[in-house]
Amino acid sequence: MTAGSARSGGRAIRVGLDVGGTKTDAVAIDGSGEILGRVRRPTGWGPDAVVQSIVETTLALAGEAGFGTADIRSVGVGIPGMVDSGSGRVLHAVNLGVESLDIAERAGSVIDAPFAVENDVKAAALGAASLRGDDASMAYLNLGTGVAAGIVAGGRIWRGTHGSAGEVGHISVDPHGRVCGCGQRGCVETLCGGGALARAWGRPGELPVRDIFDAAEAGDPVAAALRADLARGAAAAVRILVLSVDVETVVIGGGLTALGTRLEDDIVRALRADAENSPFMRSLHLDERIELLPIGSPVAALGAALLTAAPAGYPITEKETAAHG
Amino acid sequence: MTAGSARSGGRAIRVGLDVGGTKTDAVAIDGSGEILGRVRRPTGWGPDAVVQSIVETTLALAGEAGFGTADIRSVGVGIPGMVDSGSGRVLHAVNLGVESLDIAERAGSVIDAPFAVENDVKAAALGAASLRGDDASMAYLNLGTGVAAGIVAGGRIWRGTHGSAGEVGHISVDPHGRVCGCGQRGCVETLCGGGALARAWGRPGELPVRDIFDAAEAGDPVAAALRADLARGAAAAVRILVLSVDVETVVIGGGLTALGTRLEDDIVRALRADAENSPFMRSLHLDERIELLPIGSPVAALGAALLTAAPAGYPITEKETAAHG
Repeated sequence: MTAGSARSGGRAIRVGLDVGGTKTDAVAIDGSGEILGRVRRPTGWGPDAVVQSIVETTLALAGEAGFGTADIRSVGVGIPGMVDSGSGRVLHAVNLGVESLDIAERAGSVIDAPFAVENDVKAAALGAASLRGDDASMAYLNLGTGVAAGIVAGGRIWRGTHGSAGEVGHISVDPHGRVCGCGQRGCVETLCGGGALARAWGRPGELPVRDIFDAAEAGDPVAAALRADLARGAAAAVRILVLSVDVETVVIGGGLTALGTRLEDDIVRALRADAENSPFMRSLHLDERIELLPIGSPVAALGAALLTAAPAGYPITEKETAAHG
Repeated sequence: MTAGSARSGGRAIRVGLDVGGTKTDAVAIDGSGEILGRVRRPTGWGPDAVVQSIVETTLALAGEAGFGTADIRSVGVGIPGMVDSGSGRVLHAVNLGVESLDIAERAGSVIDAPFAVENDVKAAALGAASLRGDDASMAYLNLGTGVAAGIVAGGRIWRGTHGSAGEVGHISVDPHGRVCGCGQRGCVETLCGGGALARAWGRPGELPVRDIFDAAEAGDPVAAALRADLARGAAAAVRILVLSVDVETVVIGGGLTALGTRLEDDIVRALRADAENSPFMRSLHLDERIELLPIGSPVAALGAALLTAAPAGYPITEKETAAHG
């Protein structure tokens, strides 16, 4: 019996990994999309350690959820970097110390299953769309250290021609704004990226944005201005996504969602304030079109698992994902 | 013989009309997409006159190109207003004095053919994509009195959930910018819309934007600032389209393209200046991804004619167009 026929005769489990800068989050789903198990492990630094993290996390997940590697039908990997849609090669994953890496080739020599690789935010968009359970178009807006969105329409990730679809973090919305890490001025990310806000705040802390919110509530004017920036930037990202792609819903996730309803209320208020003088903007009902993900929701790992799934509504295979770009 | 069988047995000519604020532009195409004829007639004001313009322009086109109404397989109409994708009803076409109009019902009672109706910029996007002749994704950016874009991907108009896809003219890119007609401040349209520029210039003229360019070349600092605004706004629109949808090409059309290479050179310079400090923006090669349409190119009428066409690459029917929204 070949490994291939073992897989197809096995339990048809799809593994999805979200390889983050500090930890790798993994889920296993069965044929019906049910989550069978979840594990989190630290991520190593550099290409070899990243591959090792992927392999070890997958094996740990198999142990935890009680399946063998022969039961694995596919492994999907979401990773913070550019993913070349043709080759599946990861490029410029700077937070992982990876300049160029063929995960399918490297990890596939240990775990004999088809691999699919996608940018983590795009994978998270697919996962978030799956959790919504309808096939309306949506964008997943990730407010983390950086800011980016993934777009899902017709059950597929919209990558665009060169994979830069959803890169709304680097659209400038203020010619006099702060200089962005990308070199431009006034990018959305300078307003609502956790990294940019922490730099502007300039004080140490585990989650500087929470400190900013707390200080703003205590009356600190610098913190209040930064808190307003965060809402303004997120609102700008939502507006850009609706006025360019016109997605039905913008689901907001990422580390900053740890702020919960304080963040959501701020963004809703900013959207309403922007629409106050504009019948056109009011007609879009943006304040009703956003949703905050619960913190810790495994959308990126789930979306990664779904990269190779082809049930109704998610007709994405490795080949189609590549061709789609 | 019924009218229907006469049509299917006839020459299968598709008529496309671009109903503009002052004139209606019409083309007829045969089954291979060849343009058989083109006429332009003044557009009337108000719903009755608009319907009459559509009917009379179609009949004039038939006379000019030598076909009978029984040869008409379909009539597509591009119109500046919101088009409800379900009903095909035109809403808020303020420049035509139309609040709500069912063109298919009204004009269809005179010309017995299926009608399809679409927003004029979205129709123009389809026409521009057809002229390009490949199926790469593209956006058509219309720089006219107002500013809007249409997106075509996979040979189809991307309408979005509520038809607001491509409305990049009303994305604010400067919180301290001029107030827009939409009520917001610093919209893309305040920078590069012909109407906004003419208001800011404040002097009469047939094409105020040409006067602005000429005055800028003669050393007028107000004109130079407005000319820079135009380039900056158009560059922002291009950036937004690529960083949200990641279209391969942005084709620029609309009345302001009468400025020709002076406009194109300005936009290319603005895109290059923005990318100067940003390796990320340079990697997108935006300056190589724009194209200016020749002035007078009948893209909106051609796209309207193609709304009901279903050759390879343009599988859009009335029903599919509606369902796509």
